[in-house]
Amino acid sequence: QVLARTNGHSNNNGQSNGNHRAPLIQIDHFGFLEDGTFKQRYLVNNEHWDQKGGPILFYTGNEGDITWFCNNTGFMWDVAEDLGAMLVFAEHRYYGESLPFGQDSYSDTKHLNYLTSEQALADFAVLIRELKRKVLGAQESPVIAIGGSYGGMLSAWLRMKYPNVVVGALAASAPIWQFPDMVPCGDFYKIVTQDFARSGLNCDVNIRRSWKAIDNISATDDGLQWLSGEFSLCSPLKKTDLDGFKAWLQETWVNLAMVDYPYEANFLQPLPRWPIQVVCKHLSFDPSSVSDYQLLGGISEAARVYYNYTGNCPCLNTSSTATGNLGFIGWYYQACTEMVMPLCTDGVQDMFEPQDWNFQAFSDECNSLFGVRPRADWAATVYGGLDIASHSNIIFSNGGLDPWSSGGVTRNISDSVVAIVIPDGAHHLDLRYNNEYDPHTVLSARIQEVEYFKLWITQARKLQIPG
Amino acid sequence: QVLARTNGHSNNNGQSNGNHRAPLIQIDHFGFLEDGTFKQRYLVNNEHWDQKGGPILFYTGNEGDITWFCNNTGFMWDVAEDLGAMLVFAEHRYYGESLPFGQDSYSDTKHLNYLTSEQALADFAVLIRELKRKVLGAQESPVIAIGGSYGGMLSAWLRMKYPNVVVGALAASAPIWQFPDMVPCGDFYKIVTQDFARSGLNCDVNIRRSWKAIDNISATDDGLQWLSGEFSLCSPLKKTDLDGFKAWLQETWVNLAMVDYPYEANFLQPLPRWPIQVVCKHLSFDPSSVSDYQLLGGISEAARVYYNYTGNCPCLNTSSTATGNLGFIGWYYQACTEMVMPLCTDGVQDMFEPQDWNFQAFSDECNSLFGVRPRADWAATVYGGLDIASHSNIIFSNGGLDPWSSGGVTRNISDSVVAIVIPDGAHHLDLRYNNEYDPHTVLSARIQEVEYFKLWITQARKLQIPG
Repeated sequence: QVLARTNGHSNNNGQSNGNHRAPLIQIDHFGFLEDGTFKQRYLVNNEHWDQKGGPILFYTGNEGDITWFCNNTGFMWDVAEDLGAMLVFAEHRYYGESLPFGQDSYSDTKHLNYLTSEQALADFAVLIRELKRKVLGAQESPVIAIGGSYGGMLSAWLRMKYPNVVVGALAASAPIWQFPDMVPCGDFYKIVTQDFARSGLNCDVNIRRSWKAIDNISATDDGLQWLSGEFSLCSPLKKTDLDGFKAWLQETWVNLAMVDYPYEANFLQPLPRWPIQVVCKHLSFDPSSVSDYQLLGGISEAARVYYNYTGNCPCLNTSSTATGNLGFIGWYYQACTEMVMPLCTDGVQDMFEPQDWNFQAFSDECNSLFGVRPRADWAATVYGGLDIASHSNIIFSNGGLDPWSSGGVTRNISDSVVAIVIPDGAHHLDLRYNNEYDPHTVLSARIQEVEYFKLWITQARKLQIPG
Repeated sequence: QVLARTNGHSNNNGQSNGNHRAPLIQIDHFGFLEDGTFKQRYLVNNEHWDQKGGPILFYTGNEGDITWFCNNTGFMWDVAEDLGAMLVFAEHRYYGESLPFGQDSYSDTKHLNYLTSEQALADFAVLIRELKRKVLGAQESPVIAIGGSYGGMLSAWLRMKYPNVVVGALAASAPIWQFPDMVPCGDFYKIVTQDFARSGLNCDVNIRRSWKAIDNISATDDGLQWLSGEFSLCSPLKKTDLDGFKAWLQETWVNLAMVDYPYEANFLQPLPRWPIQVVCKHLSFDPSSVSDYQLLGGISEAARVYYNYTGNCPCLNTSSTATGNLGFIGWYYQACTEMVMPLCTDGVQDMFEPQDWNFQAFSDECNSLFGVRPRADWAATVYGGLDIASHSNIIFSNGGLDPWSSGGVTRNISDSVVAIVIPDGAHHLDLRYNNEYDPHTVLSARIQEVEYFKLWITQARKLQIPG
């Protein structure tokens, strides 16, 4: 279903469409000592494009392979015909095939130095200007930025920083306020917990109890062996693995909350419809009536819903929780520099073990991993923090089930910086293809989004009339 | 009249006022490999400041020593009491005492790498946030950016890029459109020429003829010697100096056009009131009635008005045309990277020798001087080019006599991105102290500017009311 092309590095497995020459993008937009360039991959579809200035929907790529985001952003494909729109999916530098220094891009701190959101935004701005210059008929095309999650943050920021380049932005599930001193660090895990609480009797309570059960059972070697067997772990658990094992489980519940979609889907993992409800069926027992072994037996069944819905998984691997299409090292570097997003748990309002947000420990870990230290205050300075009212033409959509809505914009800021809340939606559900199981709230969100697009396009065309 | 303070490097010759600790500013805001910091100098006056949230007028420093700009921006001092405003003058990195690498800052391309407008804007944003955090009573203070010339460009861009940090900007004589493909490259020198044409009979005609006269006379050694004597040059002219000599004269006329103020002033040089009229008195003869020697005799008298109004100058130095407070090498580096401003002459609509804009030659010169090449298209991408209508709360003021108005915004873009034209004004006349000789057009410009300030301050206070 994806008609895609790459920029010359290599051909995508999709069908080529169009014949644009990739612009050479500066590796460093903000300095002139490093004057090298790289090829940024982008995918184009102009099947429905009105070549007389029809709009361009421009996906601002996230921390991963762009073809994967392209395939998981059906909304753009669904609305292209109605809008007469060209679709462009631009890959974020340092991910997928868009590697500024090829295989050396991740080799050391020096090569990683150009992996920042500001550089990525500049890439998108340069690419859009190049496309408009080079593609016949695109000179006057209004461009709308679209993205989800970190890609949604980039969409909003692209409109904020380059309003000359994009006429508006749809920022889906974009936690632009998940930075220090903007929102309470505990909200994220509270939402995860609520998702489980509402999806089955005792579900959150049993997960909250599981951590202590793991401590109890893992206290003996027999218990460790039992745990490894019960969870069908690929590598048997050692005492020193326990924190990692718990973190893996915690991330599993978080990921389930993100992809709690109303239909079968394969985003982070292949999953059934409303996967948390399926998970919670294994955790519905009365917490006072089960042993630690029975409790963890339920937990292992629950985890298998996430990791082995297809039944093809011979063992569970605690070193990974999601698709390989995401660039985890790159993202961790970004978290260790600009994308400082405090999260914390208290074990009371959430179902996790209490853990404070400890910036110093995080900074030290970043320093030992990458030789860099995060700058906690920079994102608020450069991207406006809570004070974004002077911008225009941005939609922030958020799903009520999505833990990342904790850092999202969920109320209207002005007439043209608006929020759309989708109570039954998980992580950027609105960006996915229409589906028969979609709740009406996401259908109406998509309708509103397209109405805003049309408004922005009309505004942009009016501005072009001389005088 | 200037109450100023520095940040700890050393004390200003003005009076210290306030006791703020200078924040350490990142040398590289856009990368994390270079994690060093430097001390940015800024000057503060809070004599008239209303400590209960009174506004801050923040001068975004240009390419030079901030104390000099502070002393030449009397407007801010004149309006401080009426507004209850704190005055802050922030020095631009790499100029004055704000040297990121101390004495090594200019040592090579590597050390110069952080001299960009984006870094400077980030410095200002960080400094403002720090001041608001640290200075008691400033937490809710609305900040207005003010600047002239390149500093005015920075003011406008600060509002465009960091609207969360400044509520509005006065960009005086800011040629934000003097970049490739935005305005005709010849307009600048046309305005210079018009200034001379209107200031005395035959004035532009005689200057236009002078270039050929210089060629004629300098063809012989005797002629060269005559020229050196006639102009009282500090170093006798050689054949190879001729292009430099002409460039020096050309820059002299340009500078006169910039500082053609209606009263005695000392900006680039100490000068009489309406200096071009004084210059033109020496160039009013009928062009057909004089010899080359007589013509150049007039030119040398005219040049002396600019270089020796005080009568203290024993000889004229063709390697310099203006105050030493400006950082010429730094500015030339900036021109060689981001600040690519095409200028050209045709000798018909202007009074100069025809010269095309030659980007390639310029780029090659930059490469040989600094080891960098300019990026002609970058400023348009990052700062919006002609398309700035989606921004708000920016005043662009321009003087009709100022050659830089060629690249300025001289018509209203929207209700809140507005232009003020001062027909009798030279380069940012509106930023200077009130003077009895001020034309009424600059007085009314200043009144309008303050009215906009008050509007922005009121808007900002309304936004702070909860709900």
